[in-house]
Amino acid sequence: MDLIGQSYITSMKKKQDLRFINIITTVKSTIIKHDMIRLGDRIVVGVSGGPDSMCLLHVLYNLREHFHFELIAAHFEHGLRPGEDEKETEFVSSFVKGLRIPFEYQRPVRDIKNGQGSLEERARLARYAFLEEVRKRYNAHKIALGHNMNDQAETVIMRLLRGSGISGLKGIPPVRDGVIIRPIIGLRRDDVLYYLQKRGLQYMKDSSNADETFLRNRIRHKLIPILKQYQPNVISILSRTSEIIGMEDDFMEVRAREWVDTNVLFKDGIIGLPIHPFKGLHTALKNRVIRYLLKKRMGHLRRISYEHINAIIDMIHGKRPNMEAHLPYNIVVRKVYNWLLFDEKKELEDFYYEIPGHGKYYLDAINSWIIVEQVNSVNETDKEGVIFLDADMIEFPVVIRNMRAGDRIALWGMDGHKKIKDIFIDMKIPLDVRRAIPILENKGLPIYLWYINKMDNRYKVRSKSNNILKIGLRMEKTPLWEHIYKEASHAIG
Amino acid sequence: MDLIGQSYITSMKKKQDLRFINIITTVKSTIIKHDMIRLGDRIVVGVSGGPDSMCLLHVLYNLREHFHFELIAAHFEHGLRPGEDEKETEFVSSFVKGLRIPFEYQRPVRDIKNGQGSLEERARLARYAFLEEVRKRYNAHKIALGHNMNDQAETVIMRLLRGSGISGLKGIPPVRDGVIIRPIIGLRRDDVLYYLQKRGLQYMKDSSNADETFLRNRIRHKLIPILKQYQPNVISILSRTSEIIGMEDDFMEVRAREWVDTNVLFKDGIIGLPIHPFKGLHTALKNRVIRYLLKKRMGHLRRISYEHINAIIDMIHGKRPNMEAHLPYNIVVRKVYNWLLFDEKKELEDFYYEIPGHGKYYLDAINSWIIVEQVNSVNETDKEGVIFLDADMIEFPVVIRNMRAGDRIALWGMDGHKKIKDIFIDMKIPLDVRRAIPILENKGLPIYLWYINKMDNRYKVRSKSNNILKIGLRMEKTPLWEHIYKEASHAIG
Repeated sequence: MDLIGQSYITSMKKKQDLRFINIITTVKSTIIKHDMIRLGDRIVVGVSGGPDSMCLLHVLYNLREHFHFELIAAHFEHGLRPGEDEKETEFVSSFVKGLRIPFEYQRPVRDIKNGQGSLEERARLARYAFLEEVRKRYNAHKIALGHNMNDQAETVIMRLLRGSGISGLKGIPPVRDGVIIRPIIGLRRDDVLYYLQKRGLQYMKDSSNADETFLRNRIRHKLIPILKQYQPNVISILSRTSEIIGMEDDFMEVRAREWVDTNVLFKDGIIGLPIHPFKGLHTALKNRVIRYLLKKRMGHLRRISYEHINAIIDMIHGKRPNMEAHLPYNIVVRKVYNWLLFDEKKELEDFYYEIPGHGKYYLDAINSWIIVEQVNSVNETDKEGVIFLDADMIEFPVVIRNMRAGDRIALWGMDGHKKIKDIFIDMKIPLDVRRAIPILENKGLPIYLWYINKMDNRYKVRSKSNNILKIGLRMEKTPLWEHIYKEASHAIG
Repeated sequence: MDLIGQSYITSMKKKQDLRFINIITTVKSTIIKHDMIRLGDRIVVGVSGGPDSMCLLHVLYNLREHFHFELIAAHFEHGLRPGEDEKETEFVSSFVKGLRIPFEYQRPVRDIKNGQGSLEERARLARYAFLEEVRKRYNAHKIALGHNMNDQAETVIMRLLRGSGISGLKGIPPVRDGVIIRPIIGLRRDDVLYYLQKRGLQYMKDSSNADETFLRNRIRHKLIPILKQYQPNVISILSRTSEIIGMEDDFMEVRAREWVDTNVLFKDGIIGLPIHPFKGLHTALKNRVIRYLLKKRMGHLRRISYEHINAIIDMIHGKRPNMEAHLPYNIVVRKVYNWLLFDEKKELEDFYYEIPGHGKYYLDAINSWIIVEQVNSVNETDKEGVIFLDADMIEFPVVIRNMRAGDRIALWGMDGHKKIKDIFIDMKIPLDVRRAIPILENKGLPIYLWYINKMDNRYKVRSKSNNILKIGLRMEKTPLWEHIYKEASHAIG
């Protein structure tokens, strides 16, 4: 087989095929610029059999001595086009055999036709999982993929139209996590075809076209030709722009992370952002910090819009000390005095505890302690959450539970009973909070609602009461909460 | 005249004309968000008579009590379309008269048809100069212009296609220099037309169309409708993207400026960048710092490409201690050991000095001192620039001058003379440097070339020489240069 080597490049130089030489030089400088390959690296190349991956494999094969690395070719069969798929595998396999490097291929273990998300997304995930599996099996360092500059430009346009903001405009990263490398990201599609033609290499109709979305195809075949009428260099300009944006995006991320590392508290999945230092940040960094923390909390930023970020920043700057914003995926951002807490809205299970008598009991459902004791007098200085009852009216076991449909309670100065649901509605307590409010039940009837402090009038301690029962409910605080509530209570004075 | 006021908005609310209310709300929040107007501001509104500026004037007129500001309407007549121009002025004038606010207009003092740059650019500059002049005359604080969100999106696309990088993508700033404000930048063009229609307001075919470039018109009327097929919200998405990019661009600029302020030396128009601390910066900030310094040195960044910036950064990181890069507009960036100097390539005038005898003389053309003295021996430890001659061969006055066509010199070990031009060519000395090299002339003939250290063999001090003449050439250093050369000579060791 006729392969490119130093001698080949020399002979091409004589023929003045500068374009061919430029293609090799571009790949080389892409590798150097992004520090893609290190001495002794073992690299898994994803080869679909299409022009990009064939060019990638061939160029890398011929640069392997220049950069001192080893190659493994890996082909993933999607199993979506019976007949065609096998032909493709056969084609790649026989080509790789000629290069005398290891070849791995896989038919999907599970049918990727069914499952969550789009077919394209599932195929992509299965392909990446396979490549990663091959990388681990071979103890390899990198996975090389055949994205080119046109893919880059198409991605930038697609994301620009989608409104993905700066992080989207940076496009496909030349290196991701130090593992995924894209050595031909600096080549235009026509460079790839030119290379293949000059080397007399064959390729299959790129199977990745099959999992391209309709939008990408329209952008490639319709929109980009139109944009070229306005700017013939649109591909390289978009690629260049995304490179600069990628660089600056990284800088912003680094700054945001630095600030978070020295200012933000993390505990038990809750994130605590101190409001005062945050207010001093540059607007751009404020946006980045909020995005960074949301991503940290949610694991992604799907369905988070610019408006969400702005609402949170407005909340921080607003005068109201206690507010909350409800975001997608059950995320709640709470302003608690000088802190902003990123937490998850928890769907509380129903809970029901029988309290046999005096003592201290832990209620794990609401992460709280309940303390029941006999006392001699009502101590008015006692804290919130502590109630005093006429002990003679109480029969143990009492019950601590959350609300049930039809619950009623007799309140002070009222004849008859009132529906607990109506109390909640009157007080505008949101549905998910209602389920977390502990109710004290005695003899099968609700007699006290914690937090909103409503008590059945018959149980109150009166001058004639002989025995007083003190029941205190105290939330077990994590160190983060301790810290924040200490500040909060200090703020309340 | 029927004008919008609070009562009007209330009545519209009853009619559920939410779109109209949203338009007012959008302008209000744009003003607040960008802190465009302060209590008691006096604002000059540029009114062309087209839909945007008519809408702007009318909205501002009706918000003037809400935000407590005063208005002056100013109309600039380009004088490019005889007949039509006067009609437009008449239209704007009579409308403004109805509002009972001051009205200013101007026909161009000088014919803007002729001059440097494009007609559009000249018209724009003349218009801005007029508005600024009105602002000063009225002691006003702001100039309000009627750019809308479509203008913004068109600008972003135009610059994206031009490859203007991030600073281009940020588009039209809502506020520039605290003076130019654009209160309707948040309105789409169809909002503007809707507003005018609802208020029964007339307008002229926007005269700004006349100074729109062909490219902008094509983008507006052809490309944007195509992009809308891909993304119906393309206008607001581009506007939003440019807002975020603008914010982050500002952050990057602030960081770059901060770094420059504490690290870079400025003296006599020369900029000195210390290389060691620069190398530690994030890549994105490196780019920004170089761009910032070039802009500082050149006053603009025209014709400066990403490649220029990269070349400079590569030069900094390269191993060669002394290099220079030649940029457009005669800017030279020199690497002098641990410093990078941004300077202008100076076209040196011819110079010619007669030195009458012993003594110290200042040669202002080359900013240097020449010292002529009688000495007893050749001191080998003497510095560069100092020469020793057989004094008996010299006849005063000697001459210090730069090269002339036809100059020849007799060198060591050579029979006959050699053309000085050929010496320069052999040594690959660039043309502009040749003109700066001082030549010592005796009895009408060149006998020594400084810097490249070539001497006519007959003048050298020999064992038989009775008298020795020492001539030293020393460049007058500015403090910046002193500093840098001290480091440089330390580096040479």
